[in-house]
Amino acid sequence: MVQMWEEIMEQPTVLGRCLHTNEKVIASLVTAVKNRNVSSIIIAARGTSDHAAVYGKYVLEMLTGIPVSLAAPSIFTMYGKSVQMGNSLVLGISQSGKAADVAEVIRAANAQGAVTAAITNFTDSPLAVEAQYHLFCDCGLERSVAATKTFTAQLYLISQLAAAWTCNEDFKRALAEVPEGLKKTFEEAQDVETKVERYRFMKECFVLARGVNYAIALESALKIQETTYTRAKAFATSDFHHGPFAMIEKDMPVIVYAPEGPSLKDVTGMIQKLREHEAEIVIVSNKEELAQYSNCFLKIPKTDNDFISPFYNVAVAQMFACRLALAKGLNPDSPRGLNKVTITR
Amino acid sequence: MVQMWEEIMEQPTVLGRCLHTNEKVIASLVTAVKNRNVSSIIIAARGTSDHAAVYGKYVLEMLTGIPVSLAAPSIFTMYGKSVQMGNSLVLGISQSGKAADVAEVIRAANAQGAVTAAITNFTDSPLAVEAQYHLFCDCGLERSVAATKTFTAQLYLISQLAAAWTCNEDFKRALAEVPEGLKKTFEEAQDVETKVERYRFMKECFVLARGVNYAIALESALKIQETTYTRAKAFATSDFHHGPFAMIEKDMPVIVYAPEGPSLKDVTGMIQKLREHEAEIVIVSNKEELAQYSNCFLKIPKTDNDFISPFYNVAVAQMFACRLALAKGLNPDSPRGLNKVTITR
Repeated sequence: MVQMWEEIMEQPTVLGRCLHTNEKVIASLVTAVKNRNVSSIIIAARGTSDHAAVYGKYVLEMLTGIPVSLAAPSIFTMYGKSVQMGNSLVLGISQSGKAADVAEVIRAANAQGAVTAAITNFTDSPLAVEAQYHLFCDCGLERSVAATKTFTAQLYLISQLAAAWTCNEDFKRALAEVPEGLKKTFEEAQDVETKVERYRFMKECFVLARGVNYAIALESALKIQETTYTRAKAFATSDFHHGPFAMIEKDMPVIVYAPEGPSLKDVTGMIQKLREHEAEIVIVSNKEELAQYSNCFLKIPKTDNDFISPFYNVAVAQMFACRLALAKGLNPDSPRGLNKVTITR
Repeated sequence: MVQMWEEIMEQPTVLGRCLHTNEKVIASLVTAVKNRNVSSIIIAARGTSDHAAVYGKYVLEMLTGIPVSLAAPSIFTMYGKSVQMGNSLVLGISQSGKAADVAEVIRAANAQGAVTAAITNFTDSPLAVEAQYHLFCDCGLERSVAATKTFTAQLYLISQLAAAWTCNEDFKRALAEVPEGLKKTFEEAQDVETKVERYRFMKECFVLARGVNYAIALESALKIQETTYTRAKAFATSDFHHGPFAMIEKDMPVIVYAPEGPSLKDVTGMIQKLREHEAEIVIVSNKEELAQYSNCFLKIPKTDNDFISPFYNVAVAQMFACRLALAKGLNPDSPRGLNKVTITR
């Protein structure tokens, strides 16, 4: 089997290990941010890691109540400017730990006396060395160019940080169940291999979600783009009404993440509108009643926790992209025009 | 001529009027944020207005040094949570002033004692009434569904606020020249009508820029989507290397904003990589030497100020979208499936 598929399947094991590896450093980081009484959180990242940052914005902002801003690294590198970060937690995320612009943000933050942390998959990477605290994904080498297990580990570390910061025992318990939930996702969505057949000749699609799962819509679109070269574009359902909906015509494929929880009402409203316009609808959900409104239904395990469903949704997104690449006769492990490590300044 | 074109052409007049209308309220708002010594800026917006917010993130963050965060309105509405905003300037942007979720963010900010401001085109709109300070676009009624003059007025008000806040006389002078610069843009890019012919059957494209002009790439893609139904997807060149580049194949149309200034090196690097992959390249630039690397070159006036070039770039983006819609036999004033006012909660 291709490496991407194997790395997707490693995720339940990876998450358990990554929590164990980081318990102490998360506790120290929480002590530091509490002692400092930080008034803002700034996250710097690129590509897939930037989608983990979007997840982080929702989870950290909602649980801690502290405003979270996603850094524009070019402000530091290209424009040579800085922002006031002395009273902030500044978090850099990069699989390789080699993102030069992200490291530059951490360097500036250190110089201002901020609390800095990095999430990477290499303990000796420039970003891991630059930051005061290093949360180590501990995923083992990720060989496929398309990031899968390192992304899920990034989400897991961010959510564990948010849970520890806010002493949220319920959330910790819910997170502890994610590895088992992922195994269940693999079982429930195992028919993805036959279901992707229908999309063998798909040239483009939209990917929609609302709230924290918007991060997963972004990541889902990126996985489809890089492994199958299909044009895929993600939107929050709320933004999709503002302009982009005009592109919907009969048979346009739209993948909709519709987990039980706060976003369900908005998302089902969008599904209805898409049906009126005769779109082709793929629904990823734990609500089986929605299957009747879809052309293709992919099931995830039960949860109405919007910080947990992203783990199951992204597993389905990864499986879908990988199987679709194979159905199209492509090798998802080595997309054209890409390298595993991307260094932008 | 269609209303969209007329409204594009009104922009030089609109900007002059909008500055005059708002000089006093901007001065009062600046006094308020200075008295409060605000430590963060939060901007809430949707759709086109959200692209003005992206411009605002760069301009306000770079000039004031204060971290700017783009709000996720669903945190306030769908999840019913709030964030600490007591020491922030919270800015809501909406053409109609009817964006319910944006108004909810402003309401929460008022309750916490934040400084709040709104940018809308209706003095009696819910958002204008809710916020403590109202910056009035004063554009006259915008009849075309595709927003043009109200977007430019939003950029202008944000940049005037940043200039006044930081007593930046150079920037004020540069801004004062924008209306004349727009007239020049209309002259220099008047051949867009014939140049769009080449793209009559274009089905998809990418739109790229770096730094603050990323906001214009986003807006350019949205204008093309909503008026011509062409799939258009914007990326910062720095993110485009991370995955999406895999979608580039021979003849793929890519629109690149390449103004003189800090982003030029990065952007010309991307143009070279695109040429190696035999993409179809549209360059919007004031650097005529770049014309030789393009299949279509659209000229903007001289400026190496990255806060000014967005005005000229977006005018070209609007002209291109409008003329392309007409070349495709579509009416850009009334795209299918859209209403002028979009209310999301």
